[in-house]
Amino acid sequence: MEKKIFEYNKDENFDLYLLIKNADIRIAKNGKKFIAFTFQDTSGQIDGKYWDASEEDTQQFLAGKVVRIGGKRELYQGNPQVKIFHIRLAKENEPSNPELYLERAPLSKEEMVEEINQTLFDIDNANIQRVVRYLLTQYHQEFFQHPAAKKNHHAYAGGLSHHTISMLRLAKAICELHPELDKALLYAGVILHDLGKVFELSGALATEYTLVGNLVGHIVIVDEEITKACLALKIDDKTEDILTLKHLVLSHHGQLDYGSPVRPRIREAEVLHQIDNLDASINMMNDVLSRTESGSFSERVFGLDNRSFYKPTMSE
Amino acid sequence: MEKKIFEYNKDENFDLYLLIKNADIRIAKNGKKFIAFTFQDTSGQIDGKYWDASEEDTQQFLAGKVVRIGGKRELYQGNPQVKIFHIRLAKENEPSNPELYLERAPLSKEEMVEEINQTLFDIDNANIQRVVRYLLTQYHQEFFQHPAAKKNHHAYAGGLSHHTISMLRLAKAICELHPELDKALLYAGVILHDLGKVFELSGALATEYTLVGNLVGHIVIVDEEITKACLALKIDDKTEDILTLKHLVLSHHGQLDYGSPVRPRIREAEVLHQIDNLDASINMMNDVLSRTESGSFSERVFGLDNRSFYKPTMSE
Amino acid sequence: MEKKIFEYNKDENFDLYLLIKNADIRIAKNGKKFIAFTFQDTSGQIDGKYWDASEEDTQQFLAGKVVRIGGKRELYQGNPQVKIFHIRLAKENEPSNPELYLERAPLSKEEMVEEINQTLFDIDNANIQRVVRYLLTQYHQEFFQHPAAKKNHHAYAGGLSHHTISMLRLAKAICELHPELDKALLYAGVILHDLGKVFELSGALATEYTLVGNLVGHIVIVDEEITKACLALKIDDKTEDILTLKHLVLSHHGQLDYGSPVRPRIREAEVLHQIDNLDASINMMNDVLSRTESGSFSERVFGLDNRSFYKPTMSE
Amino acid sequence: MEKKIFEYNKDENFDLYLLIKNADIRIAKNGKKFIAFTFQDTSGQIDGKYWDASEEDTQQFLAGKVVRIGGKRELYQGNPQVKIFHIRLAKENEPSNPELYLERAPLSKEEMVEEINQTLFDIDNANIQRVVRYLLTQYHQEFFQHPAAKKNHHAYAGGLSHHTISMLRLAKAICELHPELDKALLYAGVILHDLGKVFELSGALATEYTLVGNLVGHIVIVDEEITKACLALKIDDKTEDILTLKHLVLSHHGQLDYGSPVRPRIREAEVLHQIDNLDASINMMNDVLSRTESGSFSERVFGLDNRSFYKPTMSE
Amino acid sequence: MEKKIFEYNKDENFDLYLLIKNADIRIAKNGKKFIAFTFQDTSGQIDGKYWDASEEDTQQFLAGKVVRIGGKRELYQGNPQVKIFHIRLAKENEPSNPELYLERAPLSKEEMVEEINQTLFDIDNANIQRVVRYLLTQYHQEFFQHPAAKKNHHAYAGGLSHHTISMLRLAKAICELHPELDKALLYAGVILHDLGKVFELSGALATEYTLVGNLVGHIVIVDEEITKACLALKIDDKTEDILTLKHLVLSHHGQLDYGSPVRPRIREAEVLHQIDNLDASINMMNDVLSRTESGSFSERVFGLDNRSFYKPTMSE
Amino acid sequence: MEKKIFEYNKDENFDLYLLIKNADIRIAKNGKKFIAFTFQDTSGQIDGKYWDASEEDTQQFLAGKVVRIGGKRELYQGNPQVKIFHIRLAKENEPSNPELYLERAPLSKEEMVEEINQTLFDIDNANIQRVVRYLLTQYHQEFFQHPAAKKNHHAYAGGLSHHTISMLRLAKAICELHPELDKALLYAGVILHDLGKVFELSGALATEYTLVGNLVGHIVIVDEEITKACLALKIDDKTEDILTLKHLVLSHHGQLDYGSPVRPRIREAEVLHQIDNLDASINMMNDVLSRTESGSFSERVFGLDNRSFYKPTMSE
Repeated sequence: MEKKIFEYNKDENFDLYLLIKNADIRIAKNGKKFIAFTFQDTSGQIDGKYWDASEEDTQQFLAGKVVRIGGKRELYQGNPQVKIFHIRLAKENEPSNPELYLERAPLSKEEMVEEINQTLFDIDNANIQRVVRYLLTQYHQEFFQHPAAKKNHHAYAGGLSHHTISMLRLAKAICELHPELDKALLYAGVILHDLGKVFELSGALATEYTLVGNLVGHIVIVDEEITKACLALKIDDKTEDILTLKHLVLSHHGQLDYGSPVRPRIREAEVLHQIDNLDASINMMNDVLSRTESGSFSERVFGLDNRSFYKPTMSE
Repeated sequence: MEKKIFEYNKDENFDLYLLIKNADIRIAKNGKKFIAFTFQDTSGQIDGKYWDASEEDTQQFLAGKVVRIGGKRELYQGNPQVKIFHIRLAKENEPSNPELYLERAPLSKEEMVEEINQTLFDIDNANIQRVVRYLLTQYHQEFFQHPAAKKNHHAYAGGLSHHTISMLRLAKAICELHPELDKALLYAGVILHDLGKVFELSGALATEYTLVGNLVGHIVIVDEEITKACLALKIDDKTEDILTLKHLVLSHHGQLDYGSPVRPRIREAEVLHQIDNLDASINMMNDVLSRTESGSFSERVFGLDNRSFYKPTMSE
Repeated sequence: MEKKIFEYNKDENFDLYLLIKNADIRIAKNGKKFIAFTFQDTSGQIDGKYWDASEEDTQQFLAGKVVRIGGKRELYQGNPQVKIFHIRLAKENEPSNPELYLERAPLSKEEMVEEINQTLFDIDNANIQRVVRYLLTQYHQEFFQHPAAKKNHHAYAGGLSHHTISMLRLAKAICELHPELDKALLYAGVILHDLGKVFELSGALATEYTLVGNLVGHIVIVDEEITKACLALKIDDKTEDILTLKHLVLSHHGQLDYGSPVRPRIREAEVLHQIDNLDASINMMNDVLSRTESGSFSERVFGLDNRSFYKPTMSE
Repeated sequence: MEKKIFEYNKDENFDLYLLIKNADIRIAKNGKKFIAFTFQDTSGQIDGKYWDASEEDTQQFLAGKVVRIGGKRELYQGNPQVKIFHIRLAKENEPSNPELYLERAPLSKEEMVEEINQTLFDIDNANIQRVVRYLLTQYHQEFFQHPAAKKNHHAYAGGLSHHTISMLRLAKAICELHPELDKALLYAGVILHDLGKVFELSGALATEYTLVGNLVGHIVIVDEEITKACLALKIDDKTEDILTLKHLVLSHHGQLDYGSPVRPRIREAEVLHQIDNLDASINMMNDVLSRTESGSFSERVFGLDNRSFYKPTMSE
Repeated sequence: MEKKIFEYNKDENFDLYLLIKNADIRIAKNGKKFIAFTFQDTSGQIDGKYWDASEEDTQQFLAGKVVRIGGKRELYQGNPQVKIFHIRLAKENEPSNPELYLERAPLSKEEMVEEINQTLFDIDNANIQRVVRYLLTQYHQEFFQHPAAKKNHHAYAGGLSHHTISMLRLAKAICELHPELDKALLYAGVILHDLGKVFELSGALATEYTLVGNLVGHIVIVDEEITKACLALKIDDKTEDILTLKHLVLSHHGQLDYGSPVRPRIREAEVLHQIDNLDASINMMNDVLSRTESGSFSERVFGLDNRSFYKPTMSE
Repeated sequence: MEKKIFEYNKDENFDLYLLIKNADIRIAKNGKKFIAFTFQDTSGQIDGKYWDASEEDTQQFLAGKVVRIGGKRELYQGNPQVKIFHIRLAKENEPSNPELYLERAPLSKEEMVEEINQTLFDIDNANIQRVVRYLLTQYHQEFFQHPAAKKNHHAYAGGLSHHTISMLRLAKAICELHPELDKALLYAGVILHDLGKVFELSGALATEYTLVGNLVGHIVIVDEEITKACLALKIDDKTEDILTLKHLVLSHHGQLDYGSPVRPRIREAEVLHQIDNLDASINMMNDVLSRTESGSFSERVFGLDNRSFYKPTMSE
């Protein structure tokens, strides 16, 4: 099997297939066009610039296409990048299916499906369980395939379900320490909280915000979906259990400033918000520290107030 | 016909029926209970304290009850209040129906219904018009009876529709000056923007926030109602026209901080937000200036950043 | 008559006269100088870069000069720009008067003068009317020629009076709906509120902030001018009418944070502030949407908290 | 054994010993003095007012004294309170030791000591472990006796160690899910993070801020103690392991605004901060919800941005 | 000579004349009126409540009147107050002139006039010196009599000039250390910066904000006065020296948020702002610490972000 | 003696030795590497770009090296820069000691040592004086050599002690005007407040933040040093004098937001904070105005909220 891009060392030459994740056409200070690429395969993402691009180049090397590249892996200001020697589109008889190059969650879809399903048994409120099952069934395909974000945290295929699983595990550990929490409500809130991203984001390939994502947003979208599910299941959507479930979803960003139309005002809503934060933070820090050398500070993390993080040498 | 409370002059004695709008039981610094009342009739609202209240008093003089009061109209620190000489519940054969005492919008329900109906003809987008008609029909009763708020602006029976009419008139005047605006979208947004208050507030009598009001909020409630209307009317709720209508409703508070889950990102959404602000501001300033003497500053207005307003003598 | 720059299509070649609005000399990453131009004619403004500029080029192609350019109209990252083939200064016998190329308000000066004059009759407070007439007469020339801003809203010749007219129309529509408002005060406030910009900005050609603009600012400048007018007209500037007029001008930015030394504390002051906001917002949104394709989001608007706006396809 | 105050029902008369936690002398609106008491026994805290207090009363009924009270348990605006019939100081031969009435952590000191000691084995960094052991030994007495706060969360005898234990359990659960975290560092950070409160607060009885608490604060106090421990143990306090431990302590409030002189810039520091938040939030919400009836909203919680929390009926 | 109120000890009885600085009529929780007085004589200000006030009492005991009081000096929650035994208006043949009781700056008017006059010689810019002289002459009377504030700092007769003198001394000391500063500009800025308070505040007796104070504010008032002075002196008010002087005045609050329409953008403007801050801070801290016992914290200071200040025992 | 870089005029050619303060390797838009240098000698700092750098160039031209450059002094967008004709490393027999090129405080070390020593006699509190002497002795070398910052204010060799001296002079002038201030405490606070920078910053040559600087910060470092000094001197570090000294140091940034863990709550602490601000502000403004032409605005100053400052022509 061919080596992946991150299996090459610094300054090593390579010749391999990569997926174009992003292709921005810009004009260089000498007046000529160049393409600022982000390539990816299952080992990660890497930038590379293609100078003096022709009209034809800019029209064929588009996001979502697979290309064959000869180049060199380099390091530029602490970030990995590729120097491009030559580049061409992959042909039909070559491995040109973009799906082959998507970075994926570290858990398989089957494992994730199984873990979510097991959790459903713990949701012992009938109305809530029926709504959760209904929506999971309806959006099964997208839920286990979508990323959790365009960038920031869990930004890879299956990232949405992976983030959900990861939060569920935290939720279960906390419920064990705090049996006073309402498991049914909290687990249901965790499973549904980001489900709206299946509408908000275009998918794992060349991820963009959709129109409904921009005009309505994933938080309200879930609320709408719960409303529709209740209609389909003939559940009164103004009962306390459905209202509390909706509240958990609507308030999970914690602050109005961050896009929640209401602040958490139920204990489990506050806990859900903090678990979401914790899981996203750990994911972002792990991601950036994986690219940082021991004894130095990482690049700045946008999602964590632009802080950079120190990687102690003693952790080795 | 009996005189209303605000038709009495300062320091004049009266004997009349009033509705109890609020009745807070408190403990005086001498250890005895007293009741802090807010009374109202159609001429307005006025506070009054009832000292040395017995257990029986505190149990019978509740919000929503009509009482017969003998007392004196006074002025205390610039605010009108009543001194209570004697108070008793209204009897059955007396005018004891609370509805008789509610402050009302200055327009009749019929006028408002007519004006709204006329406006519907200007909404020339079929999907949007059908949704608006459907919801107006469904919540006709409450829409023309509810207040627009518990306090702040348009806090009286019919205040919700009155605020809506008032904004519609502004919207029409602006559309005449700016024909580039999409009338259908803007008028529909105005009509629906606060409709969720029929669920958020308990009604015109002894107005309180409901559970769904606290946990979901009127902004998202309208979004849910549009979603349900689309289902009932078999309209795809992800088409651009429905999305833009939802966006107008969701973004009408203008800032995330004020409870909108998205900021206005359509021209008509920004205009709707500013019209809402303008109408509410004028209503609040008019209200407070009607109780202020020329040449002096009003009490502070909570909804306008606690500013007090000067009433020029020259406006007389 | 020669075609204007925005009458050429994308990718069409042209040869025409343009005014240099801005000419920033920068150093390219190859160490050579280039000039980042903004050109304009009455159809609008457009950017273009001139590579490998000589010393002579940088000394002759200055803001305020008219040039003859051969080039091509292009689109770069959604924004129109020109590719420059050749460029030279316009000669004396050519149309080299910069005035010919200034973008202008859509109303003629005569129309605007007439509309303002008509409004003066509605200002029925003698002191206030005299001050307004005095200042309009004194700064007649500049008031109808100045832009309202360097960029942001109404940034073209006559923009100051156009913004004023546009606000007056809104003010009149609102006063019709709200006869409780003091017309004299509000209209006078509208007319004078931005008059200080005739000192704050250098003019319509190569607009810059002046020293008094930076050190004192247009808000306080108007206050000074009213003070001087009162002296000249022998009006006591501490009477209530003059104080309220000054207050409207001083508070029209609404918040201390935005440069008003006092917040609006008169009803008409709050209304003036909101009309100003509304007119500026609509102008900025119209401007940016005129350059946006239906079904997509505009560029970000600095004056509206950096939001981009969606242009619905259904508005077509 | 005598019944505790919270074992009495509403409106039941009682006669029992209570500790005075707070005694504020105020002047009633009739000009006479009264004492606003907070009483406590091991079942909780309760307020009560004592009217028409004599000079002698105000001098003898001080915080920290045990009294015998005859009274009635009441409910006032949703909060429990006592009506005082008679009150006197406890005599020497009565249970007058204040320690008997302090509310205590739900874990015994022995359990807590044991659990902390077990944890020390997981701290496998020699320097860090020695510092933690040294400080735990030095402040053993106070650490297991102090409250974690004057009010807000864990405000009872042993609250400091209880909060610490509670966070340790969360930390262990998270480390199991995230083996990439440095256990030694995180556990040591948890144990030491609030240790400075043994200096900042005067103790469990009549808790006040001390001078060093006000002028230096518990965050910097721990840093000083680590510095001294290093001197005593001859450990270089500029090695990476000690610096990271200090950093965890210094940054544990998460934001400069909340009194941390540096923000978390090590992964375990961010996790420590979030665990601290989560444990404090759950403790505060549990506390307030224990005093709230199902189906209603709690009083407002100062430490959670003044939010009130809804207690669902379905959780019963 | 009669003793002043602050020359009496705690719990000592007195019988003396005092000026009523404030008299708020309130209603006690028993339904009767009382008057919340602030009394003053040259030794300071002190509060006292007068219970069960009759109609006649409330009409005669007004702010600005001198009264004869028999009472006792007490301490209530750390603040001095008087207990009133009997109170009556001072008679004509008694010392009933309010001026006799005003607290005054520690420097005599003559000293202050002299010190300001000496400073004028250091203002070696002709235009600036003429403007300063003109305005000092015009407002001589009020400038040396007005307080600098209603409360907060320098809130006593002559406080405006005292604050100015105090800042001048700081300015001179700083100019000696930093000869690069423009003395003429800085000293002129100091002298004029708060002169607008002679219009903004009603005077030293029963100080209130005036209408021009509320609608225009002392910062802009000075700007207007400079404008008028230039007209009178035939100085062009758009020359650089006048513009910089205006800028110092307009920007002296440092931040837009604090009411300056422009931020300091000249070196001397920034220095003026900081000197103003420093002098006001020291004055407020001195004031509050003079009422605080060594070894304890003062009351909170509104003008210093509500901080309380510790008075070390070692300073004794 | 060779001329310094700032002794050359604009557009003059030079050939001289300079120290490399910074050398960032970047990639130009043509794909080739270039080095963005900051050079310095005792006359100041100046930028210059070196195009088409070879591998060897990027490896030898490092921060801290002395080079021989032939070039031209230019002005680019108002900032001085050098155009590089040729560049080579200085040889051993040439003046290659970096120390020779460091910008230095305008006072000699001897003068500064003497002035600090004189001040010690004014610190008449025994504990405080001993701590100050101890720490000055211990860090004598670094204290008089370190800069006060990486950039911003006093960013040159000896800048730390120069900033300290400059503040001491202000403190003395203020104490003369305000004898109520505790000189001992204030002077000691001034001397120690920034001493932690000897650990926080790597030194005057190629200044960087150290690990302890990032993880602990200079404010807390001084607190630790005082703690250690007390141990060494057998002074109880919980006595009031030491606590107040620590408090001055800890609170000297004034706001939690700026990194102080406590706000100033002692009079001298507030004064220290304001003196620090004032001295830093004047230093930054002087610095930037020295590079600004009369009659124009300076570049923006990061440390002063990005304001630019006007340099009046009349100051000449």
